[in-house]
Amino acid sequence: MAHFMHTQAVEKNPPAPSVTAKLLERYCAVRAASEQLCEPLLDDDYCLQSMPDASPPKWHLAHVTWFFETFVLKPYRDGYSGFNPHFDVLFNSYYNGIGEQYPRPKRGLLTRPSVEQVMAWRRHVDAAMVQLLEAADDDALSTLAPLVELGLNHEQQHQELLLMDLKHGWSQNPLDPVYQPQRLPTATKVEPLKWCRFEADAEVAMGHVGSGFAFDNEGPAHLVRSDAFEMADRLITNGEYLAFVEDGGYQQALLWLADGWAQKDIVDRGHPLYWRKDSDGWTEFTLHGRQALDPNRPVLHLSYYEADAYATWAGARLPAESEWERWAGERSDTREDIAAHPVDTTPWCNAWVWTASPYVAYPGFKPAAGAVGEYNGKFMCNQMVLRGGCSISPPGHVRTTYRNFYYPHQQWPFTGLQLARDHG
Amino acid sequence: MAHFMHTQAVEKNPPAPSVTAKLLERYCAVRAASEQLCEPLLDDDYCLQSMPDASPPKWHLAHVTWFFETFVLKPYRDGYSGFNPHFDVLFNSYYNGIGEQYPRPKRGLLTRPSVEQVMAWRRHVDAAMVQLLEAADDDALSTLAPLVELGLNHEQQHQELLLMDLKHGWSQNPLDPVYQPQRLPTATKVEPLKWCRFEADAEVAMGHVGSGFAFDNEGPAHLVRSDAFEMADRLITNGEYLAFVEDGGYQQALLWLADGWAQKDIVDRGHPLYWRKDSDGWTEFTLHGRQALDPNRPVLHLSYYEADAYATWAGARLPAESEWERWAGERSDTREDIAAHPVDTTPWCNAWVWTASPYVAYPGFKPAAGAVGEYNGKFMCNQMVLRGGCSISPPGHVRTTYRNFYYPHQQWPFTGLQLARDHG
Amino acid sequence: MAHFMHTQAVEKNPPAPSVTAKLLERYCAVRAASEQLCEPLLDDDYCLQSMPDASPPKWHLAHVTWFFETFVLKPYRDGYSGFNPHFDVLFNSYYNGIGEQYPRPKRGLLTRPSVEQVMAWRRHVDAAMVQLLEAADDDALSTLAPLVELGLNHEQQHQELLLMDLKHGWSQNPLDPVYQPQRLPTATKVEPLKWCRFEADAEVAMGHVGSGFAFDNEGPAHLVRSDAFEMADRLITNGEYLAFVEDGGYQQALLWLADGWAQKDIVDRGHPLYWRKDSDGWTEFTLHGRQALDPNRPVLHLSYYEADAYATWAGARLPAESEWERWAGERSDTREDIAAHPVDTTPWCNAWVWTASPYVAYPGFKPAAGAVGEYNGKFMCNQMVLRGGCSISPPGHVRTTYRNFYYPHQQWPFTGLQLARDHG
Amino acid sequence: MAHFMHTQAVEKNPPAPSVTAKLLERYCAVRAASEQLCEPLLDDDYCLQSMPDASPPKWHLAHVTWFFETFVLKPYRDGYSGFNPHFDVLFNSYYNGIGEQYPRPKRGLLTRPSVEQVMAWRRHVDAAMVQLLEAADDDALSTLAPLVELGLNHEQQHQELLLMDLKHGWSQNPLDPVYQPQRLPTATKVEPLKWCRFEADAEVAMGHVGSGFAFDNEGPAHLVRSDAFEMADRLITNGEYLAFVEDGGYQQALLWLADGWAQKDIVDRGHPLYWRKDSDGWTEFTLHGRQALDPNRPVLHLSYYEADAYATWAGARLPAESEWERWAGERSDTREDIAAHPVDTTPWCNAWVWTASPYVAYPGFKPAAGAVGEYNGKFMCNQMVLRGGCSISPPGHVRTTYRNFYYPHQQWPFTGLQLARDHG
Repeated sequence: MAHFMHTQAVEKNPPAPSVTAKLLERYCAVRAASEQLCEPLLDDDYCLQSMPDASPPKWHLAHVTWFFETFVLKPYRDGYSGFNPHFDVLFNSYYNGIGEQYPRPKRGLLTRPSVEQVMAWRRHVDAAMVQLLEAADDDALSTLAPLVELGLNHEQQHQELLLMDLKHGWSQNPLDPVYQPQRLPTATKVEPLKWCRFEADAEVAMGHVGSGFAFDNEGPAHLVRSDAFEMADRLITNGEYLAFVEDGGYQQALLWLADGWAQKDIVDRGHPLYWRKDSDGWTEFTLHGRQALDPNRPVLHLSYYEADAYATWAGARLPAESEWERWAGERSDTREDIAAHPVDTTPWCNAWVWTASPYVAYPGFKPAAGAVGEYNGKFMCNQMVLRGGCSISPPGHVRTTYRNFYYPHQQWPFTGLQLARDHG
Repeated sequence: MAHFMHTQAVEKNPPAPSVTAKLLERYCAVRAASEQLCEPLLDDDYCLQSMPDASPPKWHLAHVTWFFETFVLKPYRDGYSGFNPHFDVLFNSYYNGIGEQYPRPKRGLLTRPSVEQVMAWRRHVDAAMVQLLEAADDDALSTLAPLVELGLNHEQQHQELLLMDLKHGWSQNPLDPVYQPQRLPTATKVEPLKWCRFEADAEVAMGHVGSGFAFDNEGPAHLVRSDAFEMADRLITNGEYLAFVEDGGYQQALLWLADGWAQKDIVDRGHPLYWRKDSDGWTEFTLHGRQALDPNRPVLHLSYYEADAYATWAGARLPAESEWERWAGERSDTREDIAAHPVDTTPWCNAWVWTASPYVAYPGFKPAAGAVGEYNGKFMCNQMVLRGGCSISPPGHVRTTYRNFYYPHQQWPFTGLQLARDHG
Repeated sequence: MAHFMHTQAVEKNPPAPSVTAKLLERYCAVRAASEQLCEPLLDDDYCLQSMPDASPPKWHLAHVTWFFETFVLKPYRDGYSGFNPHFDVLFNSYYNGIGEQYPRPKRGLLTRPSVEQVMAWRRHVDAAMVQLLEAADDDALSTLAPLVELGLNHEQQHQELLLMDLKHGWSQNPLDPVYQPQRLPTATKVEPLKWCRFEADAEVAMGHVGSGFAFDNEGPAHLVRSDAFEMADRLITNGEYLAFVEDGGYQQALLWLADGWAQKDIVDRGHPLYWRKDSDGWTEFTLHGRQALDPNRPVLHLSYYEADAYATWAGARLPAESEWERWAGERSDTREDIAAHPVDTTPWCNAWVWTASPYVAYPGFKPAAGAVGEYNGKFMCNQMVLRGGCSISPPGHVRTTYRNFYYPHQQWPFTGLQLARDHG
Repeated sequence: MAHFMHTQAVEKNPPAPSVTAKLLERYCAVRAASEQLCEPLLDDDYCLQSMPDASPPKWHLAHVTWFFETFVLKPYRDGYSGFNPHFDVLFNSYYNGIGEQYPRPKRGLLTRPSVEQVMAWRRHVDAAMVQLLEAADDDALSTLAPLVELGLNHEQQHQELLLMDLKHGWSQNPLDPVYQPQRLPTATKVEPLKWCRFEADAEVAMGHVGSGFAFDNEGPAHLVRSDAFEMADRLITNGEYLAFVEDGGYQQALLWLADGWAQKDIVDRGHPLYWRKDSDGWTEFTLHGRQALDPNRPVLHLSYYEADAYATWAGARLPAESEWERWAGERSDTREDIAAHPVDTTPWCNAWVWTASPYVAYPGFKPAAGAVGEYNGKFMCNQMVLRGGCSISPPGHVRTTYRNFYYPHQQWPFTGLQLARDHG
């Protein structure tokens, strides 16, 4: 299990006392952040599940807790027994190595345990985690720290999912619920797309190296060949995408992949997921409520098929993930906070970009042994890689090697569009 | 609209002052009862919807309020405008004459309006209703009273639905939530079935007459011919039905209607909806939680197909609704309270019994004009009549002419089984 | 099994020699008719199955042969063994009492046995049948004759089905295949609807009596009560139905049963199954190919929902089956031949009419013992009764007590529309 | 359109007279081969379509003819008009650039045009093609030849599809129809798997070069990096795969990709598509009829999910397509004839092997302009590359750069399994 992450942070030598302190601090911060995210929710909202792909807020809060209980407390804390044996099944997402799972499409039916009980469970697990870590000697810590770090990154992934899922659920409600009341500022007018040129290179480095945390699917680091190409310097905007819509892009079969054209719900809708054309113009549903469609904000919530069709229409293509990683490696975008909706098109952490790369293992990749090995490997089929992060991604998750992945028809992540093209 | 109900209670002559008082008292009692039914619920439970046929508790509380607002307040109270224009759509069940409806399978997504807002709406409508009724002169009352009476009977129907739906939703939860904590008493051992004999009669009266409230589908009263027959004196028990299960009843195609045998979910399950065979015997899920299967309690939650197959296996048949009404007419069962689960098999208000009669209009039936005419008539196709009432039916709904109706595959109402057979 | 049909034709006393001769003659005539019906087919057409409800011509030819082999030859002809043991399963339609069945939706996949082999099987069975009947003494004949008669009526039912199914299959083909090349003559202009008045009667006789063949579901004969009513003197025409279409009948929810309105394929289509609006007007697909829609021909291929919506729109209703039988009893319509498409609206054997009566057992009905009892009884749920026969019904099947039945959404039988209304 | 194929065979310089002669000879040979393949068919078989993925033999014969009519005769032969305007739609597979298509799942309903008419169309098109080619001067030929070559390769692809589809259709028939009557010889006992070792190489060449025909998706030729690896020297056998089955491989979630484990039809079946366990052992359905499962024949008809699960169980993995191409480049397998079922596991043209490579464009790939550009490019999503060819692939299609592609759940192609593993 020690191989699960490609990290060199935790070594077998005695850690400085501050390691425990830092880990505890981080543990408490991440756990608290999940709950802070839920502050705008009413009790009514915690069980909302609008499709099988999405989960209710309460389920997210419980599942990330199950992760610590299952992978840390049960194996490593003497005498720890589960809070409730039913929770082992109810809040197991997809770990067949652990046991049965409550059916995913029915998570919204779990009105019990109540929010209150889930919060009590969180407190119970937090107390046990703190005790475990405080009591851990260096040797124990060298085992525990990577698992805790994985659990924290996992919880952060669910923070993003929680907001995505909530947005999708609320979008079904004609009342247009608001997560954060705010009228979005008018975005600055974007400049015409500029292209960053990259020369052919037979030794482009890909994948995670170094001491920070990374998921197993970000390695092994390796070299790839790259032809010359050009990468757009920013995301495509609502305004640019609207031109495609208004040019009849959704009616021209020749622009679409065959599987995209067969996706009738998307093609017949004729515009991105959360857009609506009202009598007084286009609007989009956001976590700030329904807003007028600002032509200078990045377009969001595209399926891969829509992104690909746009690129074809625009005479360009989607980037390979190696191309994106090469481009991103020359930048130093960071972000301190999350934003419920992105306004800017330039830093690459505003919207995930679909790459043209199917999600497959890097050469030499081996999943970790045991149930934790189900984290990434078993999904390496039928999905496409997205890169860069979005405005609701936790800040620490924004790195050049991060590989997100979704099915090409999915639209509820904060997915945008960045063009590439051949060169030379 | 005055013809909507077959009632003679409300006449055009000036009503005694007590008519208003009685109506108000009844209005307040019925409205309060809906909310009392929800007392065991947690906030988490109000949005639970486990299938398209069922609705969340919050939706029921809102919809019955919508009914008064739509059919009484808006047309008859000067200056009344809706509480929230979105609610016109969100809480319209199926009245095309009124306007659009929010899709039924998505009612569980309506985390907003909150329970609190729905309760505020109830208060708002109640206040307006009280003012309207208090101010009504005799003439106005003669118009309003039948509509209010209809609205109250409608709300009572939803009280039963609310509990049925909640039970179905909770049954999906491995935690076995409990509505009313109580271990059910051991039921008295039933006697062998006795048969009540009825002679052939060319003039059997059917349908509602008299001064009490009845739904439009209970009339016009009319005569039918009846052959001689015999009716069982009580409901079939869990123990009797278990004998059918254990005799392989679910594996013998010749016992089943073709459409029943094609209902794979029922046939493959091999037992009634809420039963489960555990290592230490059969249990059934009830509103008192999961309970050992008592062989002397009435069997519940059968589809029509299961009821019919049992009757065939038992060498009997299901009664025609006219037979049941004739039999019931000789009894005087009443009930003061509801019970979350029936224990007794004799009074006919413990479980709805499937009749062999498809739900069609009585000769001469005409739906009321306008949207309120959608109440019953448009459902007179593909459903079967059930008679008698069940332990969670509001007491006033237990009458010999009441016609309930469900599709033959449905099992979540409190449906039981009473046998009949030919005679002579 | 002797009770299977309500017939008094065959008695236990020695039959005159002519009984055998007549039966043989009839056997040969019916069997030959099935094959004559197929003469316009190409080899390519014999496996055509366009939906699970329909069967390929080859399957019909084989199944009716299976019926004689299974219910007559195997039990009654010494030493007869099946032609091919696989055929027992392949051509069993729905007789669970006999054994397994090849899945109905896959019948079109049975390219083998070839047409040639099926024809060889027919010859084989015919030879054995002739030998069996010729050798039968009076006693044997008293057992065999009702079964043979049932088999022949069964085969005639499949003659109608074969044409219905073929029409549906060909209707999917843009080449508009033609069964019988002929331009239909212009129909005579119909007179405005006249109403035949019937007085209330407490003793209306229903059901089959007498010596002719009838299916078990046509009995027992019994009395019913009838209110006064009026019956239209002819079928509704294309022209009358077109007025409903053009009046927006398919867009007005209030005209439709709830289940009909939910049948999106029908409602969204906006016209009867085989109609099409071309640039130069309405056409309908017929067994004579695509023809201009003649306003004076009977409207055909309506679902129950469409028939009911039309009746509501027209201020009338569909007749009860007892009303229809009473009306038909006063007429003496007969027909010598079948016609691939009906032109006339008056004799009641031009199009099946949907009645408002669900298909249920008559009082005292009991299915025959054994597998043959599956013929009718197990379908007595969810279907509606149709009466009268259509232009492709074999002549002998046109009788006042005949009860045909289909699901309310089905449109591929030759279903038409005759109105009734209350009176008095 | 000249860029459609990566071929240098046809140059703008005057071709020798033999070019026309050779092309005509090849045209006639390929066209005749399609019809010879159908010789074992009965008339009954020509319309058989057992699933939307498959097409009837008649449709294949017609569609390949449509291809020549659409892409060669209509644009290049003066005065040529289509044989039947309906055929433009009926036999267009998926070319949106050409126009509408008859729905794929309904191809089996096209009993008309008859086989005879389709054969007449073939004769008509063949005559026109011969005339066109014979009259073509060098310049015309330089345009026509690549298109004709494409059409012939296209027709050969459909020859393989025709047999695959026929096999699937017949496999649904309990009569086990036989394409080629023959008891398969007992295969030679295979040796234990040997591994061929390949060293790491930063400049592995991939893709088609040279003068022969290749599809557009086989280029552009380019270099890739390859780590060291080992490739199994033969296909996996039935016997080896049976060990996986008997070890409970289909019951162990941890061996499967998540999407594979969710494919209930495959996982619940528990063995490859055409296998069956009878009382006297395993059999497999083949084009020679049902045969005993020979442990030394190659395993066939695996989905990608099954192939991947087997590889995981065996401690190996599937090869990348670049690895396979490198391995195959060192061999010189050829084949003169097709075989209805493969017996040998060593030449790589016995069964397609699933690679771990998703089907995506090679760097710099651009689809051809116009409708013919829909040939390959629009399918580059959600599918996996298969390599090598199978026993029913036309001989000329067996080359190291050929990229076949199917969805990971598909099993009806002749798909086998060849293992690879990391090294060093």
